[in-house]
Amino acid sequence: MTGASTIVAAGRGRAFRLSRDERIRIGLPEGPQVADMFAFALPDLGERLSTEHTRSCVDRLAPVVGEAFYSSRRRPMLALVADTSPGTHDLLLSACDQARYTLLGHPAPHRNCVANLVAALGELGLAAPVIPSPVNLFENVAIGPGGDLTIEPPRASRGDAVTLEALMDLVLVVSACPMDLVPTNGQDRRPKAISVERLGTR
Amino acid sequence: MTGASTIVAAGRGRAFRLSRDERIRIGLPEGPQVADMFAFALPDLGERLSTEHTRSCVDRLAPVVGEAFYSSRRRPMLALVADTSPGTHDLLLSACDQARYTLLGHPAPHRNCVANLVAALGELGLAAPVIPSPVNLFENVAIGPGGDLTIEPPRASRGDAVTLEALMDLVLVVSACPMDLVPTNGQDRRPKAISVERLGTR
Repeated sequence: MTGASTIVAAGRGRAFRLSRDERIRIGLPEGPQVADMFAFALPDLGERLSTEHTRSCVDRLAPVVGEAFYSSRRRPMLALVADTSPGTHDLLLSACDQARYTLLGHPAPHRNCVANLVAALGELGLAAPVIPSPVNLFENVAIGPGGDLTIEPPRASRGDAVTLEALMDLVLVVSACPMDLVPTNGQDRRPKAISVERLGTR
Repeated sequence: MTGASTIVAAGRGRAFRLSRDERIRIGLPEGPQVADMFAFALPDLGERLSTEHTRSCVDRLAPVVGEAFYSSRRRPMLALVADTSPGTHDLLLSACDQARYTLLGHPAPHRNCVANLVAALGELGLAAPVIPSPVNLFENVAIGPGGDLTIEPPRASRGDAVTLEALMDLVLVVSACPMDLVPTNGQDRRPKAISVERLGTR
């Protein structure tokens, strides 16, 4: 699978089984776009990438290059090996779901990252025991002086990418966020594709 | 149960069944101390207080008086009715568990908030389907300019309290955090008791 490249279509999700030491690059082929990322250990999906344990383990809102995302058992799960973007990623906000679109004034069915997660795992015959808090790669959430949160267009540009290394066997899910009501995916609010390249092991 | 008052001993946890509209006051009888708080809907514990959905619903790192803590289904779950403390609470860090103490250099068994959560629910014949990210009442986590997080002594003092109102039937768990290795519970690093008063309905 080394060198295999996948385009995750705008608004869709895909799951990838990664072996320990395998690297993967997640990028922006079309311009600013958020990639909701989830990870579960294999074979026990009860251990998952946890944003709160990551914050507690790196003493930071989000890991920087050289650090890792941690699991719900405080084990390093995915190393952040490289990042050509300005490094702005969000670990604070929930993944979009139908309720989120309904609350934003769109009660009709809308594609969403939670449904993408469930469907992508299902394609591999897997099921998430819980919907985790996501790593929102490239999402730009400004924190105001009073702790107020504002979703702003990504600071990342077309061609930017992050490279991750699996530190255990795991399944990684990437959802090209379908948000088109707020500027999560750019000022144009247009959901775009995400590229995923498997780089093999070092 | 109106007016019933409970002291949660230092380092211990307790669970409380609350009916919709019931109010509860969680306070500091002995001085600065963090209360890890969890909540699960009843009868379906699959819906739980979610820190990431709370942030997404209030567009803030933590609710202020007049706002609410939200569930994993984006429903308002607990209203923050009053707060005599400076209003500094943490929704970023994970609950302490044995792995946290081991990583801090204390590999021997140590009381912890996750074990307290499990035990407190067990006393009511309930089981948590997942260990949620906690609301760390009175915890003072400073966010630096680069997003670095520092646990500082609470800004709350003896006698301070928050008052919450249940917006659905639920079980609330309060753990008087046993942390004694970092200044979570004050410069003296001494775990203290937490008071819980049931105030009935308005």
